[in-house]
Amino acid sequence: MRILSGIQPSGKLHIGNYFGMMKPALELQEQGEAFLFIADYHALTTVHDASALRQQVRDVALDFLAAGLDPEKTAFYRQSDVPEVQELSWLLSIITPMGLLERCHSYKDKLAKGFAASHGLFAYPVLMSADILIVQSNLVPVGRDQKQHLEVARDLAIKFNNQFEEVFTIPEPSIRDSVAVVPGVDGQKMSKSYDNTLEIFGDPKALKKRVMKIVTDSKELEDPKDPDTCNVFALYKLFASDEELADLAGRYRAGNFGYGTAKKELLAKINEHFAPMREKRAELENNLDYVEEVLSRGAEKARAEAQKTLSAARRAVGLE
Amino acid sequence: MRILSGIQPSGKLHIGNYFGMMKPALELQEQGEAFLFIADYHALTTVHDASALRQQVRDVALDFLAAGLDPEKTAFYRQSDVPEVQELSWLLSIITPMGLLERCHSYKDKLAKGFAASHGLFAYPVLMSADILIVQSNLVPVGRDQKQHLEVARDLAIKFNNQFEEVFTIPEPSIRDSVAVVPGVDGQKMSKSYDNTLEIFGDPKALKKRVMKIVTDSKELEDPKDPDTCNVFALYKLFASDEELADLAGRYRAGNFGYGTAKKELLAKINEHFAPMREKRAELENNLDYVEEVLSRGAEKARAEAQKTLSAARRAVGLE
Repeated sequence: MRILSGIQPSGKLHIGNYFGMMKPALELQEQGEAFLFIADYHALTTVHDASALRQQVRDVALDFLAAGLDPEKTAFYRQSDVPEVQELSWLLSIITPMGLLERCHSYKDKLAKGFAASHGLFAYPVLMSADILIVQSNLVPVGRDQKQHLEVARDLAIKFNNQFEEVFTIPEPSIRDSVAVVPGVDGQKMSKSYDNTLEIFGDPKALKKRVMKIVTDSKELEDPKDPDTCNVFALYKLFASDEELADLAGRYRAGNFGYGTAKKELLAKINEHFAPMREKRAELENNLDYVEEVLSRGAEKARAEAQKTLSAARRAVGLE
Repeated sequence: MRILSGIQPSGKLHIGNYFGMMKPALELQEQGEAFLFIADYHALTTVHDASALRQQVRDVALDFLAAGLDPEKTAFYRQSDVPEVQELSWLLSIITPMGLLERCHSYKDKLAKGFAASHGLFAYPVLMSADILIVQSNLVPVGRDQKQHLEVARDLAIKFNNQFEEVFTIPEPSIRDSVAVVPGVDGQKMSKSYDNTLEIFGDPKALKKRVMKIVTDSKELEDPKDPDTCNVFALYKLFASDEELADLAGRYRAGNFGYGTAKKELLAKINEHFAPMREKRAELENNLDYVEEVLSRGAEKARAEAQKTLSAARRAVGLE
């Protein structure tokens, strides 16, 4: 079974990304033949700054390799290293009803967030369909927000196969209900856009400061406290064993226990959990040639598949 | 000076195509460094039949070579042999305002003609911009109906150069006012869609029949006739010398001259004019390897340019 995932390069990795997107993506490599691409063509719909884009792509590659991506198991590549996807996107465009794109929520959402109405944003679901279909993926794990795009990919694959020739595997969605709720330091969902993140590979002092600022209620030291409504506890949960959790919950409820202590224990957990990754990442940063080599090898594998699919699609429409 | 033209493969060549589109395109090779491509990606927006498309592309290649395209002077290629244009189209899409595309008449015209509203039709002006910009054309001869698309290409080139880096030559339009009015056998503009064409490379007997059916007025043999309102005369004009024209006009006005005679003289002119091309085309049909070779060489030249431009554009946006 072939499983495809795309990741948008989007800046410094934080704990919310890690549990929400990265961990599930890394688990795929144990479940089938995994393809994971850095969606730099897609990133261009919102990032119009060459050096920022280069930096973000480099960062996300380092982050994934540091976090345990195994290049032997996962074909890890930059989207733009498989430019065949753009040609396939055209071959899909000729059968893509405008209404299908006009109904896509993500485009309207982007406009609502203040992005300019560009053709790139509008055409995004066609390119995403090409990403999926070009490697003949069977399974595409997506969040709820991407479900509609996957349906576009299925529609186009079915239509193309009917109208021309049987070229594409019809991909099945695997809807990922948000696996872990990760609160930010202000209690809202952790997200770069709220400036409430805890960065994993940032400066340790800055991280400590941020952890110490996590919003809690204003109970006195001696009061019993409720772990289930506490942001610090919710974050601690992501890292701790059941025994550790039960122990901390007990101390919350017993009173005479301050949030400062909980925060210190959380910080220790974070540091402990990410220490090996930080070490690995520092090594990789000194070995960027290796990172490039991994991406090249991944692209080679994806490209071989892509060329096979594209060639079949070209024949089907009469370009060959 | 680099001059680019694209031609849509669209079926059997007729006299209207020849004077309206083909002759002006062939004259370009005397005016600068000419690039001429067969727009098969664009054709896909309306032709969804693989063997019809293959046939049309082959026909238009044969037609142009038979009509005097000199592969030493013109880089003659299939659009889809330069797939880099699709990637560039994406790099333009990210800065293409939706409003710019929504204002394009050609899209609305196509819908009015009954074509389904597909994303390919809608995105056509972006791909056409990429066609133009990727070979750094200085001059693009277009009919009035394509003027707006050329303005899109100019807008996008200027915007990209400003927003990222100076990558593109800004193309100048050269508006071709319809050079020759070529009436069809019914007196309307000659066009495949009116079924009133005179085919150049078709069956000679069928051509004779069509010429004999050209609509004239119903004056008697002995009546003086008006050459300036006669379809037969208008067609004769395309082939005859000034003396021949004056002579025929004199006989029209003198009376005792039938349209049948004029039609026979027209037919003789057509056959005389196209005889060498028909011979050449028959030869080429027996030498399709040569045709392929010409198109490959043309693509090689265009592709070298395209790769240079694309690489600069990729660097400018941060993909490299």
